[in-house]
Amino acid sequence: MADLPAKANGFIDWYLAVVEAANLTDKRYGVKGMNVWTPYGFLARRALDAVMVREIEATGSHPVEFPALIPQTEFQKEAEHIKGFTTQVYWVTRGGATELDVPLVLRPTSETAMYPIFHLWIRSHRDLPLNVYQIVNTFRYETKTTRPFLRVREIHFFEEHTCQSGDDQATARVASNLGAFRRMAEALAVPYVALRRPDWDKFPGAFYSIALDIPVGEARTLQIGTIHHYRENFSRPYEIEYETPDGGKAFVHQTTFGLSERLLGAVVAVHGDDRGAVFPPSVAPYQVVIVPISGKGGNLPAQFAERLGKRLRDRGLRVHVDTSEDRPGAKYYRWEIAGVPLRLEIGPREAEAGTATAVDRLGHRSVIGPADLETEVERTLEGFRGALFEKALSAFRGAFEVATHLDQLRDSTKVRVLAWCGQEACGHQIEKAIDGALLGLPEEELPIPLGDPGPCIGCSSTAGTRWALASRPL
Amino acid sequence: MADLPAKANGFIDWYLAVVEAANLTDKRYGVKGMNVWTPYGFLARRALDAVMVREIEATGSHPVEFPALIPQTEFQKEAEHIKGFTTQVYWVTRGGATELDVPLVLRPTSETAMYPIFHLWIRSHRDLPLNVYQIVNTFRYETKTTRPFLRVREIHFFEEHTCQSGDDQATARVASNLGAFRRMAEALAVPYVALRRPDWDKFPGAFYSIALDIPVGEARTLQIGTIHHYRENFSRPYEIEYETPDGGKAFVHQTTFGLSERLLGAVVAVHGDDRGAVFPPSVAPYQVVIVPISGKGGNLPAQFAERLGKRLRDRGLRVHVDTSEDRPGAKYYRWEIAGVPLRLEIGPREAEAGTATAVDRLGHRSVIGPADLETEVERTLEGFRGALFEKALSAFRGAFEVATHLDQLRDSTKVRVLAWCGQEACGHQIEKAIDGALLGLPEEELPIPLGDPGPCIGCSSTAGTRWALASRPL
Repeated sequence: MADLPAKANGFIDWYLAVVEAANLTDKRYGVKGMNVWTPYGFLARRALDAVMVREIEATGSHPVEFPALIPQTEFQKEAEHIKGFTTQVYWVTRGGATELDVPLVLRPTSETAMYPIFHLWIRSHRDLPLNVYQIVNTFRYETKTTRPFLRVREIHFFEEHTCQSGDDQATARVASNLGAFRRMAEALAVPYVALRRPDWDKFPGAFYSIALDIPVGEARTLQIGTIHHYRENFSRPYEIEYETPDGGKAFVHQTTFGLSERLLGAVVAVHGDDRGAVFPPSVAPYQVVIVPISGKGGNLPAQFAERLGKRLRDRGLRVHVDTSEDRPGAKYYRWEIAGVPLRLEIGPREAEAGTATAVDRLGHRSVIGPADLETEVERTLEGFRGALFEKALSAFRGAFEVATHLDQLRDSTKVRVLAWCGQEACGHQIEKAIDGALLGLPEEELPIPLGDPGPCIGCSSTAGTRWALASRPL
Repeated sequence: MADLPAKANGFIDWYLAVVEAANLTDKRYGVKGMNVWTPYGFLARRALDAVMVREIEATGSHPVEFPALIPQTEFQKEAEHIKGFTTQVYWVTRGGATELDVPLVLRPTSETAMYPIFHLWIRSHRDLPLNVYQIVNTFRYETKTTRPFLRVREIHFFEEHTCQSGDDQATARVASNLGAFRRMAEALAVPYVALRRPDWDKFPGAFYSIALDIPVGEARTLQIGTIHHYRENFSRPYEIEYETPDGGKAFVHQTTFGLSERLLGAVVAVHGDDRGAVFPPSVAPYQVVIVPISGKGGNLPAQFAERLGKRLRDRGLRVHVDTSEDRPGAKYYRWEIAGVPLRLEIGPREAEAGTATAVDRLGHRSVIGPADLETEVERTLEGFRGALFEKALSAFRGAFEVATHLDQLRDSTKVRVLAWCGQEACGHQIEKAIDGALLGLPEEELPIPLGDPGPCIGCSSTAGTRWALASRPL
């Protein structure tokens, strides 16, 4: 296997090589941008789904699933929304040999699938809040270059849709989503910024959009999630009304929260290094790989490896015992590229003593056991997650840099932090200067020390300026 | 809420009413036959998926996911197969405003999506067996009457696809699938028959098909799963070849194993009664509902109910504490229709004593606790599953009846067991006589005592006759 390109020499080339070498996906399927989830990649996806399910259900959201096909008639009810998607959807026009009377859209997102049913489900204030989510695949007729996990045509997608009794309740749901995302990102050990997008960059139909972005080297960022407040923008056309406690009628206020397989791309992007992928234990396809080394020990190492594998699986860990005929060095190399958090080497000495030589993916080596071996493995994995998060946070902190003049933006090698007055004209000046996007206003404290923003980098006005971020989105 | 129709007065009317009353699905979506998985129904589906995943992975199968869209060019490679599906598929013909060069089929099943990739994955005998499965939605442009879970246009589908080195290995995989299904069916407490379908009724492209059928009243049966042996019927057109140990080339032998949301329909069909759905604990959306009854006890029952709910959830149980404002009787009624296996009533006395009055969905009542209350709940649930299975087995045994003359078939009120010589002409005579289908030859012992089959019910020949089943498939 050829060496990987260096991450520092260009993110995308490195990223594509790592995804390929780790065998997370197969891009050779007959439709460009629709990739195959390999057995190894699928395990990561399943683990990611489990993290999302755990955190969203902890906030009182319920799983549902709506159909993948949406009648054109429903799809077109919200004008802004359809405008945003009209060039990006797949159309089903035939069933068997029959032309369909009403063409069907393969869902790009499910507002227009769900909201006609919400209209039926919601009658009274007692039906609120309605917090439901689904994890499904969505489809975009993507004409730009596709990239595994980052930009694909069939997207593994998480979407929460909620109905609230009013603006305040919807704002509270947005805050709850931000909290759920914080816990998901901690599980993935991925630091991020939450930014309120400028008006010209919000989701079609949204009142406002909060995006979750990560820096991915140079001045580049990757959007890995969004939370939208719709107010009544959808509930009016879809007539999602309820009877208030005093007997009146009101439209619900709606929110959505969207995540996708991009989170896996983010995990690769943030943690991967020049030796391959690096998975945090939460989403690692295998959290532990056990490599028996026979030598003069005969079958003992292999037997102990199998027994240990079973003991760890009984603790709920994802474990692979590599009994292939390759040399140990080849196995180490393979599972290093594949990003396995923890390797346990079992030689004759370990098999004899009931211990294991543990080597984590950051290269830390220790001998664990024989007492409490399973607990030691769990503790080592948790320590690894912590170390990975620290490493990621340190890189994250170094990824931002303040700019005080527009002409500094052209040569940005970091995500730029700048003062903005909030006017659209200045925003567009900034976007032109950096040849990218004004990402918006932080919803939470930024990871670098910042004083007063001072004058707007565009118009030099000092009135109402705030710190904003600008980058070249991937 | 109106009373349910009696199950004995007609299966389908009763079935539709129960599915509706239990709120497992919403049929009011804008495309007929594409239904919404409600929060309650989705929990059953998720639990069903977990049963399938557990049992198939225990047999060494790995999860994958292939794209939902299949290029027409790939879809058409296996002639028999495409012929079987040509009137039943949805076609995507447009992306945005652009006509696609190659139309895409929304997968009705994934042979033609997977096999071009299997061609790339398999090189050597060391790559075999390849056992992979996916749980995805498939699509059929169904023109018959649609029924929730039983006949829908977007189908929640389980499909295993395997490649084996030869016929024997493929036959062994079929046997392994039968074993996995037996364990799944035990978890669902659903008795079934496994039948090798007659040649004229096998899956398009299969060498032979084994179907899993259940009786659903009168002479009706429901097919709830299939296992196919393809031999080289797909591996030749898709060129799935491997290098044998002696350096030669051979085509793989393939098998598939298909299940779907019909299993949920089967659960409703088999266990449900005139008072609603009845779920075995394995797939019950809520395994336990706790109903606090305040009375003079003030808040104590509600507080104990919440604490008990948490303790049971910590044991991994799916628990709902019904703190709504309805009267206890209304709650009992609601959760009975919904099919919850076990209701725990907590009145002031129970709250005081740390006990619960347990009433299972078959009406058995007991007081459990205060010692080992959680364990008692688990034991009660397991006892309930056993009782449910016994009840189902008893009905199952009564659902079959031997027929010795063709004219007995016309008035069949049970699934018919009859002697068949194996000739197609006799098979068609039987199908005409019962106005249904010859289901095929049992792969396992039938649940009624049977002697020698005697002469064929069609031609009266005694040569090579075997017991076969005939019914009117739903």
